[in-house]
Amino acid sequence: MTRDEITAEIVAARLAKGLTWQQLSEAVDKPVVWTIAALLGQHPIPSETGAVLAELLGLDESVVPVLAAVPMRGGLPTAVPTDPTIYRFYEVLQVYGGAIKELIHSEFGDGIMSAINFSLDVERKPHPDGDRVVVTLDGKFLPYAWTSADG
Amino acid sequence: MTRDEITAEIVAARLAKGLTWQQLSEAVDKPVVWTIAALLGQHPIPSETGAVLAELLGLDESVVPVLAAVPMRGGLPTAVPTDPTIYRFYEVLQVYGGAIKELIHSEFGDGIMSAINFSLDVERKPHPDGDRVVVTLDGKFLPYAWTSADG
Amino acid sequence: MTRDEITAEIVAARLAKGLTWQQLSEAVDKPVVWTIAALLGQHPIPSETGAVLAELLGLDESVVPVLAAVPMRGGLPTAVPTDPTIYRFYEVLQVYGGAIKELIHSEFGDGIMSAINFSLDVERKPHPDGDRVVVTLDGKFLPYAWTSADG
Amino acid sequence: MTRDEITAEIVAARLAKGLTWQQLSEAVDKPVVWTIAALLGQHPIPSETGAVLAELLGLDESVVPVLAAVPMRGGLPTAVPTDPTIYRFYEVLQVYGGAIKELIHSEFGDGIMSAINFSLDVERKPHPDGDRVVVTLDGKFLPYAWTSADG
Amino acid sequence: MTRDEITAEIVAARLAKGLTWQQLSEAVDKPVVWTIAALLGQHPIPSETGAVLAELLGLDESVVPVLAAVPMRGGLPTAVPTDPTIYRFYEVLQVYGGAIKELIHSEFGDGIMSAINFSLDVERKPHPDGDRVVVTLDGKFLPYAWTSADG
Amino acid sequence: MTRDEITAEIVAARLAKGLTWQQLSEAVDKPVVWTIAALLGQHPIPSETGAVLAELLGLDESVVPVLAAVPMRGGLPTAVPTDPTIYRFYEVLQVYGGAIKELIHSEFGDGIMSAINFSLDVERKPHPDGDRVVVTLDGKFLPYAWTSADG
Amino acid sequence: MTRDEITAEIVAARLAKGLTWQQLSEAVDKPVVWTIAALLGQHPIPSETGAVLAELLGLDESVVPVLAAVPMRGGLPTAVPTDPTIYRFYEVLQVYGGAIKELIHSEFGDGIMSAINFSLDVERKPHPDGDRVVVTLDGKFLPYAWTSADG
Amino acid sequence: MTRDEITAEIVAARLAKGLTWQQLSEAVDKPVVWTIAALLGQHPIPSETGAVLAELLGLDESVVPVLAAVPMRGGLPTAVPTDPTIYRFYEVLQVYGGAIKELIHSEFGDGIMSAINFSLDVERKPHPDGDRVVVTLDGKFLPYAWTSADG
Amino acid sequence: MTRDEITAEIVAARLAKGLTWQQLSEAVDKPVVWTIAALLGQHPIPSETGAVLAELLGLDESVVPVLAAVPMRGGLPTAVPTDPTIYRFYEVLQVYGGAIKELIHSEFGDGIMSAINFSLDVERKPHPDGDRVVVTLDGKFLPYAWTSADG
Amino acid sequence: MTRDEITAEIVAARLAKGLTWQQLSEAVDKPVVWTIAALLGQHPIPSETGAVLAELLGLDESVVPVLAAVPMRGGLPTAVPTDPTIYRFYEVLQVYGGAIKELIHSEFGDGIMSAINFSLDVERKPHPDGDRVVVTLDGKFLPYAWTSADG
Repeated sequence: MTRDEITAEIVAARLAKGLTWQQLSEAVDKPVVWTIAALLGQHPIPSETGAVLAELLGLDESVVPVLAAVPMRGGLPTAVPTDPTIYRFYEVLQVYGGAIKELIHSEFGDGIMSAINFSLDVERKPHPDGDRVVVTLDGKFLPYAWTSADG
Repeated sequence: MTRDEITAEIVAARLAKGLTWQQLSEAVDKPVVWTIAALLGQHPIPSETGAVLAELLGLDESVVPVLAAVPMRGGLPTAVPTDPTIYRFYEVLQVYGGAIKELIHSEFGDGIMSAINFSLDVERKPHPDGDRVVVTLDGKFLPYAWTSADG
Repeated sequence: MTRDEITAEIVAARLAKGLTWQQLSEAVDKPVVWTIAALLGQHPIPSETGAVLAELLGLDESVVPVLAAVPMRGGLPTAVPTDPTIYRFYEVLQVYGGAIKELIHSEFGDGIMSAINFSLDVERKPHPDGDRVVVTLDGKFLPYAWTSADG
Repeated sequence: MTRDEITAEIVAARLAKGLTWQQLSEAVDKPVVWTIAALLGQHPIPSETGAVLAELLGLDESVVPVLAAVPMRGGLPTAVPTDPTIYRFYEVLQVYGGAIKELIHSEFGDGIMSAINFSLDVERKPHPDGDRVVVTLDGKFLPYAWTSADG
Repeated sequence: MTRDEITAEIVAARLAKGLTWQQLSEAVDKPVVWTIAALLGQHPIPSETGAVLAELLGLDESVVPVLAAVPMRGGLPTAVPTDPTIYRFYEVLQVYGGAIKELIHSEFGDGIMSAINFSLDVERKPHPDGDRVVVTLDGKFLPYAWTSADG
Repeated sequence: MTRDEITAEIVAARLAKGLTWQQLSEAVDKPVVWTIAALLGQHPIPSETGAVLAELLGLDESVVPVLAAVPMRGGLPTAVPTDPTIYRFYEVLQVYGGAIKELIHSEFGDGIMSAINFSLDVERKPHPDGDRVVVTLDGKFLPYAWTSADG
Repeated sequence: MTRDEITAEIVAARLAKGLTWQQLSEAVDKPVVWTIAALLGQHPIPSETGAVLAELLGLDESVVPVLAAVPMRGGLPTAVPTDPTIYRFYEVLQVYGGAIKELIHSEFGDGIMSAINFSLDVERKPHPDGDRVVVTLDGKFLPYAWTSADG
Repeated sequence: MTRDEITAEIVAARLAKGLTWQQLSEAVDKPVVWTIAALLGQHPIPSETGAVLAELLGLDESVVPVLAAVPMRGGLPTAVPTDPTIYRFYEVLQVYGGAIKELIHSEFGDGIMSAINFSLDVERKPHPDGDRVVVTLDGKFLPYAWTSADG
Repeated sequence: MTRDEITAEIVAARLAKGLTWQQLSEAVDKPVVWTIAALLGQHPIPSETGAVLAELLGLDESVVPVLAAVPMRGGLPTAVPTDPTIYRFYEVLQVYGGAIKELIHSEFGDGIMSAINFSLDVERKPHPDGDRVVVTLDGKFLPYAWTSADG
Repeated sequence: MTRDEITAEIVAARLAKGLTWQQLSEAVDKPVVWTIAALLGQHPIPSETGAVLAELLGLDESVVPVLAAVPMRGGLPTAVPTDPTIYRFYEVLQVYGGAIKELIHSEFGDGIMSAINFSLDVERKPHPDGDRVVVTLDGKFLPYAWTSADG
């Protein structure tokens, strides 16, 4: 089975067994965002962790080494997402991408927010007009640096 | 002048005059992210605010009503961004978009994070391994609701 | 079975059993547009409703939890639709999209029609030159608002 | 001047003169949606109407015959719109396009809603939870008919 | 079986049985262009007609209701066709599309040739330099008309 | 001036001078479809013909040799046309392209309709239910032939 | 089996049986380029020829009528080829396409090289710096001619 | 002036002065295909050659160093060419690309035809059924070789 | 089995058997980069080598001739890669592609780095701030040369 | 002037003045690859450096603050490059991208080569069969790390 086929099985098995993402993340003691991303095929899952998850989800143990390999990442089926929940984040990028870039440069200078040394959190926060989805992207600043191994 | 042409003038004038985004946002007493996004052509700028900014940047006052009109939004020159600083946010969406969707649904049920009733913040936060870019997306949760005016 | 596979089964089963969409929507006491959209994979279907539909359509009951999960939405096979019936709505957007935007802004100010707090109706209305298809899109106005959880 | 250049002039002139779309449509006694669409380059404007609009907007009278010619229609700068206000309508098509198609066929049989024998209205309607944008698409039903001139 | 799968079976069965399109269209007393288009998945096929065709082609009778449903139309595998026989018609559109548009407008005014109230014929016509393919597109003229159900 | 710039001038000059395509084609004694296509930049225009047209349209005589050169053809601004009048022909290709291909092959064998040894006509034909646009595509059949200069 | 599935079988069977393209083309007494193109799904294969090839390759005889039908041509999986051997020919078109066009027009006048009345040869030719691949494209010149069946 | 702007001037100047490509290539004693490709912006033109061409075409001498620089190559305005004369070569690639690849590999082994160590010729050759365009692509065979500077 | 199917089997088998790429490359005495690329479907694998690899990976010996054939190369699923590890190399091309081109031309004159007479190495090199990935691309310089077989 | 316009001026001015990239990089004491990339619009240029370069190239000093701002990066005009010299690097990614990914992961674990903490070198190296272009990409390894500011 390829990683993509295993991902499809995981999605179906979780629903069939009525397991929440929270339960799965607690079973392996990992952050819930990381756990979901990994189970959706975006991160390698260490063998011990994979073995626990495979058993919980009723998957064959032959999936464990495939889950443990670094996957080919990139989870959106189209370059521009069509699902409304995901599209809003793409829209944020269209509307605020330029501003984010300017602010990073004015605060840190030339460079980027790492998407590798990175964590992400999704929280529910109250507000008188209705609860809010607060997504925090937290990545190390990486300054453009012209460095070489011989330096 | 079209809004796009005014945006190009703003970008050039700010650099020529050595004004920071912070100075511009303080001059009009608006959040800095909002101010940058607006000056980059993504939000209408109320006339009084626009008049102050036009004068600071040395633009003709005829730009004020154009700045005050709701613009055609969408600030990225290509569907998939090529600038590395902006691309990382697109990459986050590719890697974590599915997980964000699952978490919003498990916490709130079916619906989305609004990108309209929304604010965004970029902060510099310390960490022993190097300072971090922390971007907070904060949008009202909107549940899917089958409502009609006659209801 | 994935949601896509279930959708394909539903489409085939409905035709084989000669059930109308109207009959299906009445069986579950939901608006007919909502019912079709949901059965075509665009909305989660609550378990009790899903159980009724699965039985009517002769589907295995294992589909019920998958139908109850929030799906990855986006039902057109290509970015620009090729089916003539659907294309006409895309054409309306090409020809009248700018006008709709201007009218929303002149009537409500800056903001959007929600596609989430939203309902849609398709009616047949008479006219001396031939009956007409009248499609009503009815969404809550959402004003651009710079709000945050801490506000 | 090409039609595109005239459209850009119209957009700028309207804002500079502080004219509302409503005022322009009343001056020529046409529906407001039609008037905006026409001024945004999507419909030919009869010469007398064009002359009135050109004078109101302060445009050279040489634009009148160009406005009167049938334009190359299609007003969105990208195949998938990026402006949030317009995008929501594209999203409606992604989520409900299949359902609209099914309903048209179940009510009328095989055929389409015309986008040519067509009108469109945008209204503000009240609702306890906030006013709503109600967009009505009203097109003649055209049945698939295998007809020929010799028939 | 989905309509696409049935189409693939039809294509194979016709070749295996050595049936010509002409024979199939005569068996159901329909124009040959219509018959081919319908069998290639582009038109619904009334049940009696579908039953005759299914028997001739040796298909299971369960395909009849699927053939009778209005299909999702659009038969080209790519937006720009690559098959040379089909590409030539796309090329005609690239070279003569503008001229066709101008002529329709100068003869009829603003409007379109319907592709719904429409028939198409392919004939072989002689010429001293070699026989010619003559394709006649015959569609009702539809004038742009701002009509509504309430009018 | 490039050919594209000359085409834009032609389009504007014709409207400003109130000339019909018919008048232009008669002035140079050429078929009207050919004349429009050529003036829209899709065919070379022989020098004598070009000189007549340039004078009628009030263009500088320096355009004559550019009009006489074979142009880079391809007159649609996007791969899939967005103008409704032109789009309908693309739709015909989507719905009937496969049928046209099958009919050409069953009547003539393997080969194509030439789009080079080709003419096109647009006619208005009466019908009790409304006049019809009849477009005739007339191209030489070219059989696939494996021929070489040495043969 | 569809033609695509048969092509995949042919590719695999040829390798498994260790047959060269040369052997296959000699067995049916056809040019080798034609034979390969046909076996890769780009040409119909007459029944007698198809029967010989099917037997040589060990395919079921039911493939013969499918091979004999005119296929949907177009053999590249992407619009721009990614295989380096094939890409070089696309690159030649990018770099020399304009020059080829100018030369055809200066030598023959307005028209094209037919890709239908056409043959192609691939030869190995010696050179002191290393043997060369010489590909000869040989197509009938087709002049643009405005001809019709009635002419 | 950029290279693109110079190319546009060259195209216009050649037509205005009535110079043939042949005359230009003879004036600089270069192959005609190379000369056209270079003047269309696809090759650098050595300074002495560029000076001769600039004078013949009446261009300012400041273009000479720009012509002498290696240009950004790639002369087609769209990924898939729309001009019929150029498209036919793309079609050849679609229909025969796979066969050319197989033949190169069966004759030479794994590798490519170079498009760099390469020449191209366009000839007119007679045939009883009409003269033919014969295009010869002649490139050095480059075998895949895993070589490194240290080897 | 097609080459693509064999590649999928290889990927799965390697993980299941816990073999490293290093072990596989040593078993066949080939450079490790070459070995991985070949096993991922980008190079033909000589029969003896293929037989060894097939046995190590537990594949059926019928894969050996398919592995030995030159494959259709091009290993990325999308034109722009979405996997972050691969994307960084595409980003390098976006940011430094122009500079690499200029440097090749200033050092060697007009021409290219061959990607065929080519090797590639990936090394880990130390640096006080963290180990570095050093990728060396090493290709023969190929000067643009207008050569022909008859020369 | 926008950064893009300044880049176009730089390209022209360098050729007109006959300056080599080497001379420019020495004048500002920066690595030559960095200097070219920066002058082609891919890096900000510190004010002192920018002032020296502007004077050498004869540009107005008003360009200095624009050069000093972080640019919108991404230097290729199309998603897939068409220039042969640059395309070869894209081809390397198509053929060896998967292998590079596997090797980085097998040597370092899950993570990427930074394209930000990064340098690049182009060298000419001798080889008996012809000199070689050796391009070294040297980036810091960044391991996937789930870190947050609060950690």
